[in-house]
Amino acid sequence: MLLHLSTWAEIEARLAADRSIVIPIGSNEQHGPTGLLGTDWLCPEIIAHEAQKTHDILVGPTFNIGMAQHHLGFPGSISLRPSTFIAAIGDWARSLAVQGFQRIYFLNGHGGNIASIEAAFSEIYAEASFAGRARGYALRLRNWWELPGVQALCARLYPQGHGSHATPSEIAVTQWAYPGEVRTASYAPQIAPSGPVREAADFRARYPDGRMGSDPAQASPAAGGEIVALAARVLADDLAAGW
Amino acid sequence: MLLHLSTWAEIEARLAADRSIVIPIGSNEQHGPTGLLGTDWLCPEIIAHEAQKTHDILVGPTFNIGMAQHHLGFPGSISLRPSTFIAAIGDWARSLAVQGFQRIYFLNGHGGNIASIEAAFSEIYAEASFAGRARGYALRLRNWWELPGVQALCARLYPQGHGSHATPSEIAVTQWAYPGEVRTASYAPQIAPSGPVREAADFRARYPDGRMGSDPAQASPAAGGEIVALAARVLADDLAAGW
Amino acid sequence: MLLHLSTWAEIEARLAADRSIVIPIGSNEQHGPTGLLGTDWLCPEIIAHEAQKTHDILVGPTFNIGMAQHHLGFPGSISLRPSTFIAAIGDWARSLAVQGFQRIYFLNGHGGNIASIEAAFSEIYAEASFAGRARGYALRLRNWWELPGVQALCARLYPQGHGSHATPSEIAVTQWAYPGEVRTASYAPQIAPSGPVREAADFRARYPDGRMGSDPAQASPAAGGEIVALAARVLADDLAAGW
Amino acid sequence: MLLHLSTWAEIEARLAADRSIVIPIGSNEQHGPTGLLGTDWLCPEIIAHEAQKTHDILVGPTFNIGMAQHHLGFPGSISLRPSTFIAAIGDWARSLAVQGFQRIYFLNGHGGNIASIEAAFSEIYAEASFAGRARGYALRLRNWWELPGVQALCARLYPQGHGSHATPSEIAVTQWAYPGEVRTASYAPQIAPSGPVREAADFRARYPDGRMGSDPAQASPAAGGEIVALAARVLADDLAAGW
Amino acid sequence: MLLHLSTWAEIEARLAADRSIVIPIGSNEQHGPTGLLGTDWLCPEIIAHEAQKTHDILVGPTFNIGMAQHHLGFPGSISLRPSTFIAAIGDWARSLAVQGFQRIYFLNGHGGNIASIEAAFSEIYAEASFAGRARGYALRLRNWWELPGVQALCARLYPQGHGSHATPSEIAVTQWAYPGEVRTASYAPQIAPSGPVREAADFRARYPDGRMGSDPAQASPAAGGEIVALAARVLADDLAAGW
Amino acid sequence: MLLHLSTWAEIEARLAADRSIVIPIGSNEQHGPTGLLGTDWLCPEIIAHEAQKTHDILVGPTFNIGMAQHHLGFPGSISLRPSTFIAAIGDWARSLAVQGFQRIYFLNGHGGNIASIEAAFSEIYAEASFAGRARGYALRLRNWWELPGVQALCARLYPQGHGSHATPSEIAVTQWAYPGEVRTASYAPQIAPSGPVREAADFRARYPDGRMGSDPAQASPAAGGEIVALAARVLADDLAAGW
Repeated sequence: MLLHLSTWAEIEARLAADRSIVIPIGSNEQHGPTGLLGTDWLCPEIIAHEAQKTHDILVGPTFNIGMAQHHLGFPGSISLRPSTFIAAIGDWARSLAVQGFQRIYFLNGHGGNIASIEAAFSEIYAEASFAGRARGYALRLRNWWELPGVQALCARLYPQGHGSHATPSEIAVTQWAYPGEVRTASYAPQIAPSGPVREAADFRARYPDGRMGSDPAQASPAAGGEIVALAARVLADDLAAGW
Repeated sequence: MLLHLSTWAEIEARLAADRSIVIPIGSNEQHGPTGLLGTDWLCPEIIAHEAQKTHDILVGPTFNIGMAQHHLGFPGSISLRPSTFIAAIGDWARSLAVQGFQRIYFLNGHGGNIASIEAAFSEIYAEASFAGRARGYALRLRNWWELPGVQALCARLYPQGHGSHATPSEIAVTQWAYPGEVRTASYAPQIAPSGPVREAADFRARYPDGRMGSDPAQASPAAGGEIVALAARVLADDLAAGW
Repeated sequence: MLLHLSTWAEIEARLAADRSIVIPIGSNEQHGPTGLLGTDWLCPEIIAHEAQKTHDILVGPTFNIGMAQHHLGFPGSISLRPSTFIAAIGDWARSLAVQGFQRIYFLNGHGGNIASIEAAFSEIYAEASFAGRARGYALRLRNWWELPGVQALCARLYPQGHGSHATPSEIAVTQWAYPGEVRTASYAPQIAPSGPVREAADFRARYPDGRMGSDPAQASPAAGGEIVALAARVLADDLAAGW
Repeated sequence: MLLHLSTWAEIEARLAADRSIVIPIGSNEQHGPTGLLGTDWLCPEIIAHEAQKTHDILVGPTFNIGMAQHHLGFPGSISLRPSTFIAAIGDWARSLAVQGFQRIYFLNGHGGNIASIEAAFSEIYAEASFAGRARGYALRLRNWWELPGVQALCARLYPQGHGSHATPSEIAVTQWAYPGEVRTASYAPQIAPSGPVREAADFRARYPDGRMGSDPAQASPAAGGEIVALAARVLADDLAAGW
Repeated sequence: MLLHLSTWAEIEARLAADRSIVIPIGSNEQHGPTGLLGTDWLCPEIIAHEAQKTHDILVGPTFNIGMAQHHLGFPGSISLRPSTFIAAIGDWARSLAVQGFQRIYFLNGHGGNIASIEAAFSEIYAEASFAGRARGYALRLRNWWELPGVQALCARLYPQGHGSHATPSEIAVTQWAYPGEVRTASYAPQIAPSGPVREAADFRARYPDGRMGSDPAQASPAAGGEIVALAARVLADDLAAGW
Repeated sequence: MLLHLSTWAEIEARLAADRSIVIPIGSNEQHGPTGLLGTDWLCPEIIAHEAQKTHDILVGPTFNIGMAQHHLGFPGSISLRPSTFIAAIGDWARSLAVQGFQRIYFLNGHGGNIASIEAAFSEIYAEASFAGRARGYALRLRNWWELPGVQALCARLYPQGHGSHATPSEIAVTQWAYPGEVRTASYAPQIAPSGPVREAADFRARYPDGRMGSDPAQASPAAGGEIVALAARVLADDLAAGW
């Protein structure tokens, strides 16, 4: 069930039975010579939307701009500062919580978001901790590539050159979902370098085409479909368990 | 051209020729008994995405959560506080500006956003004003219903019961784009009441089904298509002129 | 009744009977070759102070610095950033509310304030909305030129060259109240240009003498007196109704 | 010269010769059974306005709301939080500095403001310090009762029961300026208690009629006139020296 | 009793009997040619740690970075902005208060901290004041040199050249506690100049070796021991009284 | 070399040769029945102070309060909110950077700090990224237990019951450094439970004695000494390499 294509009364009715929600969250940022700028928010959106077709889960609107300050040297990248990101995640959570949501699950598509999302959770919990009371709801961060079995699948598909940015797995996912948007390029080097992440100017100097440690030429729509199928199959269980 | 389905190199190339971008911006909030929660961000997204099919404009990712604090009493509504919204709009603008965008045009779908977006623009301009220097880029807010000719069309389509929230015109737009998501309901009263907007508890008490001044039963996919066609046709000219 | 010339005990006694207050709010900023820098806070102060002489209303201290970032290129202009303005309006409102005021009415003298004041109201209401409770008081923004009948009077007095900044009507109001401070100048062009409002450097380049669309030479103390008389006469009714 | 009754061109001309400005700053808060709520912003305004009649100084608009959180238990008191106050003072200073003011002198009327004003100055200076550059302008805080000779005069006028809040000297100043607003009361005890200042509830419990250590019955318009005359006479010299 | 060398259960037990705590607070900043960078946080730490050896008081961790923006031109100085400092003091206080501490006593070692600490207290109290409720705990600022008798002792030890920064008394305290870290230098002039404090660049230009008004050559470990002994002896009484 | 026991001139001299600094950073929070409240800031302080005795590194003052909101239910725990923590880390970094430090290395002792510290780094880098310029200095986070070889040593020492909070390794480190502060207790269960971390009330309910997954009874001063010796030996190399 997609929240944005529902009415408030439908959500009110659902809340009587189930108080959890999945929020796809990512980033809009460069993904190398062939990756789409939307890759990091498209991936969790694709997986969550696919999952809700066959499982009884509620998927909220996609939080599409995250913490990507290091990519700002590449046109089309958009970033929130961590402080803004933390404030915004807090407002999303408080909005949903006042209506009765008790389990807010962020399905994340961007490694650079992790620290800020976790800091945001602590900021939200801290309100209750400083007040000496219970929060009343729980927050959870799950990177889509850490859904049970997904990392193993990606490792099997891409034993070399997976890397950490503009990876063949994330590009494959978008290729499967947007088959009309597949790009090719010749990469030099074939596997991009790795290293630290600092400000945007430093990043573009270290990683001139935007990739980090990856060989995205390995991506294919078919592999993307395989990844989406697995991730979508396990998402509902992951949402249901372990709170 | 959709930014999120482009690569950074494609955007870099485009910037050499054109430094403008359209950002659909809206809100995710209740829209009465039959309106979709996503209505206010879907409408500008639908129009902008339609426009870029036939015009050479660049459309960024949709800013889908806005200032909807008064709707928080209705499940599924998500709001930023004005202060958070202002910070986030600033980060979007600064991200794009550092890459060379000089005309950032927000196509807005939510009346409740207007004050905060304009305040955000002033906050961004003020940085330059306090420093005694030029800003280097311009910001513009355009509500989709104020695109040339659109309000007149809506007035012709819905001479009565257009109202200001959960209007037949915005619901028609989503019906045209999502024909599988058309709901019906019986409304009582047929035309909803009007009045002030305050906090969420007050709002739900005044407007029990969420509508303000509107009779959404008049919406139809066909009328929505007519509105979208007109708005999409004039958007590129509006973006090009008057900066 | 002027709050700042009252004692706390007098206000406490008044609150037992009436829980409303008028706050004149404006801006200190350039007003063209002849307009006083204080024009935008003097006008609502003049009207409100005049009104309380003959009507039983309570008028608070004047909020004299608003959002005037675009005027900072002209010496003597002082501005708050929107974020500061929003915080300050919130503190005023919370101060009054904790003492029992339930209707806080801002009589505004500056168009550039409107967005920030409305955003401030939403910020204040949002506290309650996120907490799922009633706010307990209501906020209202009224521009003095929109008091019933005033715009019509101004249009009759100045059918041409009223404009939007350094208008003959606002300058007339200050001339009536400060007859010793009337300036004259020759204007070129007689009616100033109109256009967009951005950062201060852009503003001064577009509007070299500070006016927007106006011919302030038309102002006269007598007309100012007429405007004040009307505005002061209708203010109390406007405060009493429509909450 | 009063800034708010000047035009921008007059201020621009003055800046060519003199780059200093006096800002009266105070608070709007309870002042015991007979003191006016505006006392703390009226006093520096009265003194500065009087001084500019006979000395060539520029006086800006009055900053009339300060840090008075402890008085909020008494109706009519309005306070900024320190954080808001600091932000607002910063915006005032940055506004004036970008236009060429180099010496911004705050004539303060409220002891409770001192810490926040000094913290605001440090916040403003810190911007330059963190950037490793000169600030380009200087800020100064002067309490009106610490103008040369004033404290000695007050001690002579009121050897006993001067106290620290709702003092006979500050009430005398307002009595001189607003002779129609003189109140009387019987005080019990004649000299109010002294003690710590904490939150508003604690304050009202400790100081039930609002006074701290003072016997305001001693105030008289004549004494107020004497204080104003002295303070106004020394202000210009104090502004000119010691930067 | 040192909090950081205790367990939570020991603190919980203590709270049943006594709800007060001493927080040494200072600054890490240049202290002239011979003073240690840690002087201003070491002094209150030294005194408080000494006091708890013989008195039943609880001493918290040292708040070692304060408001020292004016010293940033000298390497090794670290400063918080006042706004950050205020936020951090608030978090310390709220942490301790939610656990039951009711008297939080800051033993301060840096004059430049005073305004920000007092502003922080007001910010914390204001939360309660705006909410119309009691705070439930009290905050107190005590500069170590203002502990009963200490200023008189310092005046006796250093009748000339005590000054206000890099004073012989504070340097003596650190010499006593860290006898291996005593430096000597020849000072020119012997007694440093005095004057205003502004941004760091201005400060280093006015006070080239970092001292203000002082002759630190007078410091000796023995005098430091005398100061510490007195301060430590009176601290517990000062903590116990006057809340 | 300890910065706080140096003079500014000594640091200025050192900067000519080396522009790096180690900042021990931790948290003050409960550490189970026997762990000291200061454990998480004492451990990196102990290691860094030990290292500088035999290696030419500069160690700054200890950042002793971090993000520990989940521990606030246990007396003696003190926490910053993530937003405050981020602001404070930024001020530390900007202070050091303006003086010429180019490599700021945080040796961290608290897992709960990691997200906020990384978010702080991004916030600092983002300033430069939004401005399109180089930052000029680099930030690094190193948890002391992840120094080369340390985790392997801890795993060898404590193959079972190491856990993640109040671990035998961190308690051993403090036992070695503060042999007079060794506590014992009987634990039930011997190995504490594991699970999620949320607000303080939830935390204390899940982990009644404060431990997570650990059996601290295994700690010994001797093992602590072994850990410190190894960590101190490798720290200087870790600081020197990989920037």
